[in-house]
Amino acid sequence: MIDPGATLATLRERRPLGHSITNYVVMNETANAILALGALPVMAHAKDEVREMVGLAGALVLNIGTLSEDWIEAMLLAGTAANEQLIPVVLDPVGAGATAYRTNTAKRILEVVDVAVLRGNAGEVATLVGVEAEVRGVESLGGGGGDPARLAREAARTLGVVASVTGPVDHVSDGERSAAVANGHQLLAAITGTGCMSTALTGCFLAGKEDVFEAAVEALVALGVAGEDASVEAKGPGSFHAGLYDALAALDPSTLTKRAKVS
Amino acid sequence: MIDPGATLATLRERRPLGHSITNYVVMNETANAILALGALPVMAHAKDEVREMVGLAGALVLNIGTLSEDWIEAMLLAGTAANEQLIPVVLDPVGAGATAYRTNTAKRILEVVDVAVLRGNAGEVATLVGVEAEVRGVESLGGGGGDPARLAREAARTLGVVASVTGPVDHVSDGERSAAVANGHQLLAAITGTGCMSTALTGCFLAGKEDVFEAAVEALVALGVAGEDASVEAKGPGSFHAGLYDALAALDPSTLTKRAKVS
Amino acid sequence: MIDPGATLATLRERRPLGHSITNYVVMNETANAILALGALPVMAHAKDEVREMVGLAGALVLNIGTLSEDWIEAMLLAGTAANEQLIPVVLDPVGAGATAYRTNTAKRILEVVDVAVLRGNAGEVATLVGVEAEVRGVESLGGGGGDPARLAREAARTLGVVASVTGPVDHVSDGERSAAVANGHQLLAAITGTGCMSTALTGCFLAGKEDVFEAAVEALVALGVAGEDASVEAKGPGSFHAGLYDALAALDPSTLTKRAKVS
Repeated sequence: MIDPGATLATLRERRPLGHSITNYVVMNETANAILALGALPVMAHAKDEVREMVGLAGALVLNIGTLSEDWIEAMLLAGTAANEQLIPVVLDPVGAGATAYRTNTAKRILEVVDVAVLRGNAGEVATLVGVEAEVRGVESLGGGGGDPARLAREAARTLGVVASVTGPVDHVSDGERSAAVANGHQLLAAITGTGCMSTALTGCFLAGKEDVFEAAVEALVALGVAGEDASVEAKGPGSFHAGLYDALAALDPSTLTKRAKVS
Repeated sequence: MIDPGATLATLRERRPLGHSITNYVVMNETANAILALGALPVMAHAKDEVREMVGLAGALVLNIGTLSEDWIEAMLLAGTAANEQLIPVVLDPVGAGATAYRTNTAKRILEVVDVAVLRGNAGEVATLVGVEAEVRGVESLGGGGGDPARLAREAARTLGVVASVTGPVDHVSDGERSAAVANGHQLLAAITGTGCMSTALTGCFLAGKEDVFEAAVEALVALGVAGEDASVEAKGPGSFHAGLYDALAALDPSTLTKRAKVS
Repeated sequence: MIDPGATLATLRERRPLGHSITNYVVMNETANAILALGALPVMAHAKDEVREMVGLAGALVLNIGTLSEDWIEAMLLAGTAANEQLIPVVLDPVGAGATAYRTNTAKRILEVVDVAVLRGNAGEVATLVGVEAEVRGVESLGGGGGDPARLAREAARTLGVVASVTGPVDHVSDGERSAAVANGHQLLAAITGTGCMSTALTGCFLAGKEDVFEAAVEALVALGVAGEDASVEAKGPGSFHAGLYDALAALDPSTLTKRAKVS
């Protein structure tokens, strides 16, 4: 059952550690989002420590937003260690489709690591499924033939993951079950890193609930509702950004599930 | 003709990609400034992808604020690829004059890459022209003999660039034409990375207008006007910082040119 | 004499450079905290320049929050250069106790570099003293037997540093003198990097005052009072974060000492 309020209550009580190997652009912002939600963040990318660090974590997030060779090796090491210890892994293929390096790295991680949730925009996910897509830098300009619900289902089946395709409406599928999440606000697209935040929060929800598909949906509801709340007093992207952490921290487990726009 | 409003309207319509190889300190902030202005940001520094990424971009920004060898090589690779594809390059020589490593790296980039705009503070630019200067870390404590207008002209002529020397009043020169930009607010100096933001926005304006000198002037007008607007309700550097993105997003193409204080 | 107001006035006049080799997560935030306080920040980690950069600095901050081999070598180089030039060094052993890599790196820095102040949470400091502790990622879940005053004194004596153990109440000791600082607000624990900020501000205060123990105490008073002020209008962690820089910039040297809750 999709019940983001219950999972939020659980993870605020457990305070699981979300271990991220992520890009330089959003490290502070995703750490603060994780803290505001109620979990604990850590960023660690050294090959000498990722296996040990992931052992403390409730989930591992791999995000390829700013890549280099050492970081890729660390992601593969951490991912396989997470798999051995049954810690769920979320992959954010930032910019797949923009350069071959990003596309190939995302594919390599999907091959080597058992990824629980692939969270990306339509262009990135379409690229990984092998459908035509246009990605300008890290922004999707369309992909998957304009039908993100179908794209999510296809990605789930082809890649053996729960696919979480975010956009104006988000689409999540495990290949059998599918859900559309209509929570959110357009200001979420006006600041950098909210996609990465949704990935990070997906990791947190995976640490609070066994059902991967449901957890992935619930994470998007939580960020979407926080975006709705933050938009109320926002005067633009800067005040919205500050308000988004206030709103994440103020998310009320007792009303969150009722506010979910999931179909 | 200096017409920042018109260029802003153009770039909001085109949404060009600004590819930055920049320092860790300001990655999030410059990405958000580029988004707030109305363009698209991407950060990519891997030698394996910079040539491909820059091919998607309307401008390339090289910023040496936190250096290491691999990053320098990536900057040279990306810069020469940009030159081959006639994509304009902006260089921000952060901290040139503070250490030989920074000074030499900035000089090396200027030698290898055809730089369209050099955007720095007086101390950094004076260092590259060979005039005495004092740079404490990344802060200019003076340079160029106290005459930044002359410094900009001299830098333009000596280095074969459009020189954009920012400070309480900004001075831009292509060696022939010169302009002083008096827009701005002192709070811009109270937060880190606003110099880097002006460099990033210069890249955006270059992607929206052919005339390099005019584009460089217009970018400083845009940031300066946003700073003026953000200062109105600011209670200090933190609220100013959040308000600056609101103000960039709210910049009105129809009034921006009238508000320019250019002489 | 503990007189944070006087030291703050001194450092706002001198504007010393605080050189940080710190983690990716907090670079922007600590730079902005240093600027808001009234000093100048620089981040530089290249082995080719750290010796030269630290020579310009009033203090050096080493923070192991996101490690890799090159960065460790740069920290050791910069630290020994700082020692040769009698520039005080502050160490923040982020996550010591969470992985062996972090614990060993912190110990190695303490061996090779003469550290003036060790600033950490109870779990991190306890780990370095050899007392049992629990560190989840970078968060202390307890350590040092629940008596942080004693832990600070023991760390100071064992490690030959001024130990600054922060928490709900902070404890600072040089082995002989000890102080508890009760300034602060719980929202400081709701955003990432405030521990790192306290380390950075400790560096600034060391650049403004000879007595290391007193400077370490005064830095915690300054951040704590700013946290109290920022909490007044905060609606959550995001608005608190923005307000914290406003509050640091607004710190009044003439009242700061009176507001210190030091025992």
